[in-house]
Amino acid sequence: MNIETIQFDDKGLVPAIVQDAASKEVLTLAYMNQESLTKSLETKETWFYSRSRQELWHKGETSGNTQKIQDIRYDCDQDALLVLVTPEGPACHKGTYTCFSSSLDNQEVAVNETDSVAILTELERIIAQ
Amino acid sequence: MNIETIQFDDKGLVPAIVQDAASKEVLTLAYMNQESLTKSLETKETWFYSRSRQELWHKGETSGNTQKIQDIRYDCDQDALLVLVTPEGPACHKGTYTCFSSSLDNQEVAVNETDSVAILTELERIIAQ
Repeated sequence: MNIETIQFDDKGLVPAIVQDAASKEVLTLAYMNQESLTKSLETKETWFYSRSRQELWHKGETSGNTQKIQDIRYDCDQDALLVLVTPEGPACHKGTYTCFSSSLDNQEVAVNETDSVAILTELERIIAQ
Repeated sequence: MNIETIQFDDKGLVPAIVQDAASKEVLTLAYMNQESLTKSLETKETWFYSRSRQELWHKGETSGNTQKIQDIRYDCDQDALLVLVTPEGPACHKGTYTCFSSSLDNQEVAVNETDSVAILTELERIIAQ
């Protein structure tokens, strides 16, 4: 693990895009500090830093909707993370599959994990076995 | 358009996750201010705010690798954007399809737009016609 390559900002945080590894839908944008990134790597579940509550936050600790980490990638500037997960339930505190459920053209977007891409990704995985 | 619902941070910026609308791969995490978001909506191409150069930045203006916007979504806190695009070329200034090409387990990740998901998404689109 080369966690020391990650550039944390002046608040000690790095943005972490959470993506469903199967459906490839983007679920959440959250933030990690060094401690939460270390805990995420150790436990293989997502830990974030809550900017509003100013504390470490284990996703799903109260709701049960944990996220099992499949991979953590970083970008060319080393200042953003992409966390590929298998979600155990809704990512959003509002109970929806993804936090990105609204479009700027005023429409609600129906995004779910059982769409064709997820099914086909699963099919591809089975075929590859 | 309800751009006024978007919460810009104390620097006037909002993080914008750029995702390929077909393959669903995450390409880049960039930042928009109100002006670049407005220009993105007007031109249907991505405009960002460069934090290092402190200026507006039309993606692909010099490289030709523009990104045609299909949809812009926002999250439950209205403080993050998800921009679904059709890329005209590599998203990364290093010439790769996505900026997220490295994994924390020290492996380079081969991500490209012609993977099975993109092909199947395209197939689904053709069938739906």
